Amino acid sequence: MSPDGPARPLAASNGRVKAARRLARRPDRTEQRLFLADGAKAVEGALSVEGCVVEVFATPFAADGHRELLAAAERVTLVDERAMAGLSDSVNPSGVVAVCRFVDVPFDAIRTPPRLVAIAAWVRDPGNAGTLIRTADAAGADGVVLAGTTVDAYNPKTVRATVGSLFHLPIVVEPDPVAAVEAARAAGLTVLAATGDAAVDLYDADLSGPTAWVFGNEAWGLPSQLADLADHRVAIPIHGRAESLNLSTAAAICLYASARAHRS
Amino acid sequence: MSPDGPARPLAASNGRVKAARRLARRPDRTEQRLFLADGAKAVEGALSVEGCVVEVFATPFAADGHRELLAAAERVTLVDERAMAGLSDSVNPSGVVAVCRFVDVPFDAIRTPPRLVAIAAWVRDPGNAGTLIRTADAAGADGVVLAGTTVDAYNPKTVRATVGSLFHLPIVVEPDPVAAVEAARAAGLTVLAATGDAAVDLYDADLSGPTAWVFGNEAWGLPSQLADLADHRVAIPIHGRAESLNLSTAAAICLYASARAHRS
Repeated sequence: MSPDGPARPLAASNGRVKAARRLARRPDRTEQRLFLADGAKAVEGALSVEGCVVEVFATPFAADGHRELLAAAERVTLVDERAMAGLSDSVNPSGVVAVCRFVDVPFDAIRTPPRLVAIAAWVRDPGNAGTLIRTADAAGADGVVLAGTTVDAYNPKTVRATVGSLFHLPIVVEPDPVAAVEAARAAGLTVLAATGDAAVDLYDADLSGPTAWVFGNEAWGLPSQLADLADHRVAIPIHGRAESLNLSTAAAICLYASARAHRS
Repeated sequence: MSPDGPARPLAASNGRVKAARRLARRPDRTEQRLFLADGAKAVEGALSVEGCVVEVFATPFAADGHRELLAAAERVTLVDERAMAGLSDSVNPSGVVAVCRFVDVPFDAIRTPPRLVAIAAWVRDPGNAGTLIRTADAAGADGVVLAGTTVDAYNPKTVRATVGSLFHLPIVVEPDPVAAVEAARAAGLTVLAATGDAAVDLYDADLSGPTAWVFGNEAWGLPSQLADLADHRVAIPIHGRAESLNLSTAAAICLYASARAHRS
């Protein structure tokens, strides 16, 4: 760790702090292809990806508590508590925030041949998108595709909900969901659309082969024209009176059903 | 449907509207044992429980759009848009809110013998608690126990996240998690603690019998003294680099593993 700049921690009014704070806004992130990873877990994940971290901001107190973590950073800049509060999306900032380069990759950067990929189309809730990436990581997926007009993968709430998983597996951002499905099929994956109205239920589906799951929007699910492109539609059985499942919950059940089938 | 009171919709300053609005605060809910069900789906669920709904507030526009739903309500009071905005927790109020009596029941109100029960101990996040109730409903659970010092089951965010499931299955509020585990065992359920550090993994666990799952807090999981009371500890395998799963995601995977085992 080599805190640079003046010995006095930078204030919120400092130009570099202000420039970093602007990355809370999507247009600024998109323009600069930079985002903020907030908290020790996220910074640790970011530092594990070569060339991802531009610099780390830390309060003197947090820098002291996270010496080992920050030793891996090329550039650590001390900031005061108020500056940190402006950089962090969290109610209780942990005191470390990294400015990171975008990590998304093209579909063909997913390892070949892939065994399990999650395609989330038109996801709107930042927490759902982040939880899905975290769950896909846990289930051993080879990659996650955010397809269509979705929440920004680099939204601070999304990054936080991934709890570091954003940096653990390939994330693909594909504005065209049809292209995402076609790329999955071209990679040898059987494409399964998770829909409420399907003839095949999850327990009966053959999940033994390489699979890409396609999940739809929180409110309106998966439109027919996209579900029709899948090899099969698969429904999670609803045993009680609930009408449906939360998106990230449904994805967890499907991805873990695949993980289980692949193990046995 | 019989809108009562004056033809003119009540304003935010009206005494009854103000009294209902105070139910957004936990102390007021606890004192009166009343809460607000916000949105058509929640109101529909509440109306399906006999004696639950005290009255429904609706904007004239929403009352017109939800005639069939509101026909089931004994008392519908029209309020203006500003009054509705104050009653609703939602950014885009749907225009119908019901004042409801608490629906939680003692453990022994769960049907006998139970086959599947979820016990969530010390859950703090309203969204997690609500999603867990929704998922337990979908998985066909016979009841959900919120045990220990938890988020209020009647928190507006929790109620919203259940999407009506709060009214579909028995909800037990038990401040003592040990008592919850003992009640589950007394009801003939095998108690399984979902923990990260377990010798048995989910795929190998015998889930064929009547099961109570115990889930811990979002941040610190399940403390040993509670996990030790379970018959077995069971871990969800982590195949990738994620350290853990989100609470409601983990619960979904476990509850659906049980549902699947019970079906076969």
